[in-house]
Amino acid sequence: MKAKIVITPKKAVLDPQGKTVQTALEHMGYDGVKAVHVGKYLEIELDGDAESWRPKIDEACHKLLSNPVIEDYQFTIE
Amino acid sequence: MKAKIVITPKKAVLDPQGKTVQTALEHMGYDGVKAVHVGKYLEIELDGDAESWRPKIDEACHKLLSNPVIEDYQFTIE
Repeated sequence: MKAKIVITPKKAVLDPQGKTVQTALEHMGYDGVKAVHVGKYLEIELDGDAESWRPKIDEACHKLLSNPVIEDYQFTIE
Repeated sequence: MKAKIVITPKKAVLDPQGKTVQTALEHMGYDGVKAVHVGKYLEIELDGDAESWRPKIDEACHKLLSNPVIEDYQFTIE
């Protein structure tokens, strides 16, 4: 079983890394790129059942894996 | 339209960041974590149609966004 977690900067937060990638893509000739957001991706391999892991993963995202002040997270367990 | 890109270290490559997260989770009392892989997540907002972007995003992943020697990538456009 795997938890797949995506952590992205909140929309209101400056994302210099995303801006840099956007500029680089434009310089490489890709027209039509409106915005780029760069975040983190985590895959956690788990033992046990999905329902008991769901609250634990949510807590781990909140306390350890993301910074809830400037980042949003979402996850799936499958 | 958005391209969602996930870049992960290849299985054979050492992932010290993932190992650190795994150790931290264990210290926080989460038992049953078998492995953690840490990668990057990019969201690119695009103008135009999905089919013409698909080869361009693939090329951008290969040339700019990932290091194909040590990383794998996959993406969806929706």
